[in-house]
Amino acid sequence: MRAIEKVAIVLVRPKFSENIGFCARVCANFGVENLILVEPENFDYEVAKKTATNIGKSVLENIKIYDNLKEAVKDMNFVIGTTARLGKQRKVNYNVGDFTKEIINLINNDNRVAILFGNERTGLTNEELFFCDETITIPTFNNTSLNISHALSIILYEIYKNISNPSSKKQKLADPKTKEIIFNLLIDLIKKVEYIPHDNEILWMRNIKEFLNHLNLTEKDSMIFLGLLRATIRKLGG
Amino acid sequence: MRAIEKVAIVLVRPKFSENIGFCARVCANFGVENLILVEPENFDYEVAKKTATNIGKSVLENIKIYDNLKEAVKDMNFVIGTTARLGKQRKVNYNVGDFTKEIINLINNDNRVAILFGNERTGLTNEELFFCDETITIPTFNNTSLNISHALSIILYEIYKNISNPSSKKQKLADPKTKEIIFNLLIDLIKKVEYIPHDNEILWMRNIKEFLNHLNLTEKDSMIFLGLLRATIRKLGG
Repeated sequence: MRAIEKVAIVLVRPKFSENIGFCARVCANFGVENLILVEPENFDYEVAKKTATNIGKSVLENIKIYDNLKEAVKDMNFVIGTTARLGKQRKVNYNVGDFTKEIINLINNDNRVAILFGNERTGLTNEELFFCDETITIPTFNNTSLNISHALSIILYEIYKNISNPSSKKQKLADPKTKEIIFNLLIDLIKKVEYIPHDNEILWMRNIKEFLNHLNLTEKDSMIFLGLLRATIRKLGG
Repeated sequence: MRAIEKVAIVLVRPKFSENIGFCARVCANFGVENLILVEPENFDYEVAKKTATNIGKSVLENIKIYDNLKEAVKDMNFVIGTTARLGKQRKVNYNVGDFTKEIINLINNDNRVAILFGNERTGLTNEELFFCDETITIPTFNNTSLNISHALSIILYEIYKNISNPSSKKQKLADPKTKEIIFNLLIDLIKKVEYIPHDNEILWMRNIKEFLNHLNLTEKDSMIFLGLLRATIRKLGG
């Protein structure tokens, strides 16, 4: 799976070193190597190391620290601000999901993209948003604010899953012929054990057919089911 | 936007109270009210309160604690395990994005859904996975493991952003008690008809359990299945 390259995560005036460590781990979780701090408040490397764990160690060791935002983003082609607030002064916010394709498009065209996260208390100020080409937001219940590292995890996850385009392991379903064999064995069993709970046999057979269809048997399931049905019928006798 | 209702987040043997607090906040971020701990290690409410912040306060105050997993999930219609590992013994993992529709479908059909997160060190054990109807995984770079609260934020975000599309198909699933009765009858039948195709009985029982979980039996399905199993066993004789 592809790492997220050419993306820098910029924490602007981060307050808590625990969060910086968590962000380092989250960056590593999605293959982002470039973590930048701008004017961190009392950054304590040892505290950050704990939440970064071994997973985020390398990202944390290579962290860059800048005195001001302008300097930090000067080599970037596109700067994205994250914000929970939807104030009057703010630009149009895209939901992160809707904007992910744009971000991937930027990355695929060799642009350096920075994603900015504001201070835990204030978020990004209007002055800081001035540096942003676009802003994105994560929809939450009652617009409650996310912890910075959780916001980061959601945004990187969205990018990562679309950039790598992974497809989950599909389970191969049983073919119709196998299902028909199973159905016929089921009917055979039902008759042998006299399991026809009402007098409308056709309706009952239809119920059984629907039951079977509904199970969405995989190939593996169908082997188990077939084996069990055959063993049972054999035991019950011809 | 709609809160995520009828979903319980279950932390199994959580180790760090900071993580429990973070999880409470993340739950609140997406409108999940039901946070459950099973056998927490040294749960410190005061520590958790700090990371929960005011946002997660109410979720944390209403946290439920159980001695064992079985008790915690006994009223659930569908149990989802989260796992980072893709070991040999494991079931097929769905990527969370691909499985989100299923989860929403379950919720929209009034099913109680539990999502399980394992201990920070070990993840969910095979014994704990035994309670799960399906397992999901979050794709990460080099399969690095996510902190539990970050995994939670990604999963709840996926559900939350997709939840506003209810589907029409109504299907209430069988409750765990019914599934357990069916499982026991199945084992009974298998022994009666001597359908144990290889010499590892425990592995075979696990196969049968997975087979049964995989069927996603609805209430109606389970009535048919139960009736058929009872009739068959009766016919085979005590």
